[in-house]
Amino acid sequence: MSLLLRALRGEDTPRAPIWIMRQAGRHLPEYRALKEKHDFWTLARTPELAAEVTLQPVRRYGMDAAILFSDIMTPLPAMGLDLDFRPGPVLERPVRSRADVDRLRVPDQGEIAPFVADAVRLLRGELGDTPLIGFAGAPLTLATYAVQGGGSKEYEVFRAFLRREPEASEALLDALAEVTVRYLRSQIEAGAQAVQLFDSWAGIHDLPTYRRFGARYAARVLDALADTGVPRIYIALAATHLAPAIEELPLEAVSVDWRLPLSAWRDLLPGRTLQGNLDPAALLGTWDTLRAEATDVLYEGLGGPHVFNLGHGIFREAEPDQVARLVDLVQGFDRTSARAEASAEASAVPSGGAPTSGGHV
Amino acid sequence: MSLLLRALRGEDTPRAPIWIMRQAGRHLPEYRALKEKHDFWTLARTPELAAEVTLQPVRRYGMDAAILFSDIMTPLPAMGLDLDFRPGPVLERPVRSRADVDRLRVPDQGEIAPFVADAVRLLRGELGDTPLIGFAGAPLTLATYAVQGGGSKEYEVFRAFLRREPEASEALLDALAEVTVRYLRSQIEAGAQAVQLFDSWAGIHDLPTYRRFGARYAARVLDALADTGVPRIYIALAATHLAPAIEELPLEAVSVDWRLPLSAWRDLLPGRTLQGNLDPAALLGTWDTLRAEATDVLYEGLGGPHVFNLGHGIFREAEPDQVARLVDLVQGFDRTSARAEASAEASAVPSGGAPTSGGHV
Repeated sequence: MSLLLRALRGEDTPRAPIWIMRQAGRHLPEYRALKEKHDFWTLARTPELAAEVTLQPVRRYGMDAAILFSDIMTPLPAMGLDLDFRPGPVLERPVRSRADVDRLRVPDQGEIAPFVADAVRLLRGELGDTPLIGFAGAPLTLATYAVQGGGSKEYEVFRAFLRREPEASEALLDALAEVTVRYLRSQIEAGAQAVQLFDSWAGIHDLPTYRRFGARYAARVLDALADTGVPRIYIALAATHLAPAIEELPLEAVSVDWRLPLSAWRDLLPGRTLQGNLDPAALLGTWDTLRAEATDVLYEGLGGPHVFNLGHGIFREAEPDQVARLVDLVQGFDRTSARAEASAEASAVPSGGAPTSGGHV
Repeated sequence: MSLLLRALRGEDTPRAPIWIMRQAGRHLPEYRALKEKHDFWTLARTPELAAEVTLQPVRRYGMDAAILFSDIMTPLPAMGLDLDFRPGPVLERPVRSRADVDRLRVPDQGEIAPFVADAVRLLRGELGDTPLIGFAGAPLTLATYAVQGGGSKEYEVFRAFLRREPEASEALLDALAEVTVRYLRSQIEAGAQAVQLFDSWAGIHDLPTYRRFGARYAARVLDALADTGVPRIYIALAATHLAPAIEELPLEAVSVDWRLPLSAWRDLLPGRTLQGNLDPAALLGTWDTLRAEATDVLYEGLGGPHVFNLGHGIFREAEPDQVARLVDLVQGFDRTSARAEASAEASAVPSGGAPTSGGHV
C-alpha cells in the first residue's frame, strides 16, 4: 500500500508522504501554458485536460499523491446553481430565500459531474502506484458561496442568512450534504483512494454556530462514506477555536493550518493522522528559511502519523525549484532516526523543537 | 469618572459601557450624507469634519464612548509613504527593500498628523462627559500594508518580505513603532482619554512569527505610553492562537473577536478588562436573534470588567434601529442582579450560559 494511504490509515510511516494543496495549478509553468489555451472551467470539466493537469505535479516533483484538479463549486450547476469563473466563482443567481432553496435539485449520483468521474478513471490508469485523492467542498462552505454569491472578505450576506433564515439554511445544508455524499461516492467508485472535505470558511463562525451549521453536515457526509473504507480528510482554516467539534467528526485525518504547531494539534485531535502544516508563505522565502520552517514541521510531526502538506494552497508566486527542494527534503527525512536523535537530545531541546532548525522565519 | 474609563481601569462596573467599532461610518445615513460631499480622506484630514463624524453616533445612540474618526494609515504619508483611498488604502510606492526602509522619515510628533490632534481638541470641547478613544495601527499591521501596498486576501508579499528581508522588516517595524508612539502621544496630549492599538492582521502568523514581528513592537508602543496613565486597549483578529503572547503585553484591556466566548478569554487573559465580542453579523439578524446573541455576550462578560463591543467593525448594512435597540439592551443590563440571578440558577445552567438566552444564531 502507498505511503499516503498507510499514513492516512494511522500508520506511523518511516517517512512522511508529501503532497501540496493546489499543487496542480497556477504556480506551474506547464499549467499556465494549458491555461492560455483553455479557461479554468473548461480545464476542470474536460476529463482529458483535468487528468493532464492533475498529473503535471506528480511528474515534475514525484509527489506521493495526486489531487484531482477541480473546484469545490463543481457540483453546484447540476443543482440548478449556474456559475461562472471571473476568475473566482460567481453565482448567476445566489440563494437568498426559502423558495430559492426549494427550487434546488438533488441530482442522481451520475448526473452531478460525470466528467469528474471520467477524469478519475483516466487518472487511475495513468497514476500507477501513486494514490489519487478526490475532494469536495463541505456543506457549510458550499452554502457560504451559494448564498453570498461568490468570494467575499466577510461573507456577511451568508452570516445574515443563517440568522434570518435558519430553517432555509438547514434545508440548503441538507441538500448540499446529500449532493456531496453522492458526488464523493462517484469519485470513490471511479477510483479515488482517499477524499478530502474542504471547509475553507468554517473558521469565521463561533463554536455553537459551527456545530449547528458546519460540523453536523460535515459529519453526515463523512459518516455516509464510512462503508467505502476510503480514508477521509477534513480541513478548515483558522479554526483552532473549532477543535472541540472537529475532534468529534468521523474521519481518519485532519489537515491543519500553520497557526498552531502539529504537537499542539496532536493534543487537540488525539488518534488522528495530521496533515500539514507548513505556512504557504514559507515557499516564498529563501531556501534557508524554507528549510528551517519545513524542518520544524517535520520534527513537530513526529508525535504520530503525519502527511506533509502546506497549511493552505500554494501561492502562484512559489518557484517550482523551491517546491522540488522541499519535496526532496521531506522525502529524505527519516522519521525513525530523527525520533531517536530528538529523544537522545531531549534533555537539551525544548519539547517538539527541531534540533537542526533555526526556528520560524 | 466615566463608566468606560472605570471599566478599562479594571473596575467591575454595575453595567457594561458600550461603544461599537467603526460606529462613526458607513452604516449611518448622516455619515453617508457627508460622504456625498467629501471623500473619505478629506473627512479624515479636516478637523471639523472628522469631529462631526465622530460625534454622529454619540448623538444618535448615546454611546458610552466616542472613537476618533480616522484610519490606521493616517500616519504613513508623513513618513514618506503616500497613499490614496480607492476606497481601500493603496500605497503609491510600497516598501520592498532595505533602501525603501532607509528612505522613510520618522517625523516629530507635531508633524505626523496635526489635523488629528486638532480634531481631538475640538471633540473634547464638544463631548462633555463622554470619553474619547484615540487609536493607531500596530506596527505589524502597518508594516503589512506598507509592504503589501494595500488590502489583500493573503498578504503574501509581506509574508515573503518577512522571510527574505528580516532585518529590513525589523528596521521598518522600528520606524513604525516610534512613529506610532509619537502619534498616540499627540492624541493623548490633545485630550484622548484611552487608546486602542489595532493589530488587524496579526492573526495570519504563527506564534513565533508574531512574537518576533508583532508582539515585540506592540509591546514597545504600549510600554512607551505607560507614563501617560491612559488606558491601553489592544485588538487582533482571529488570534486565539496568539493568546500566550497577547497575555504578556503591557496593557489594561484586550478587545477580542467572537470566535471564543468571553469566559474562555478570561482564562487566557487573567486580570485584564475584556472588550467585545458580539459577532458583527448579529446586527444583520432579526431582533430576536440579535437579542439572544447580545444577551449571551452580556452573561459571558460577568466574570470580570467588561466593555461591550462588537468583535470587529460594524457592517455598513447594519440598520441604525437595530443598533439603537442593542445599545438600550446593553445599557439596561444590570450586571449585579444578573450575576446574582445566574448564581442562584447555577445548578440548572451550564457555566457561563445565559439563562434568558436562546443560544447562538
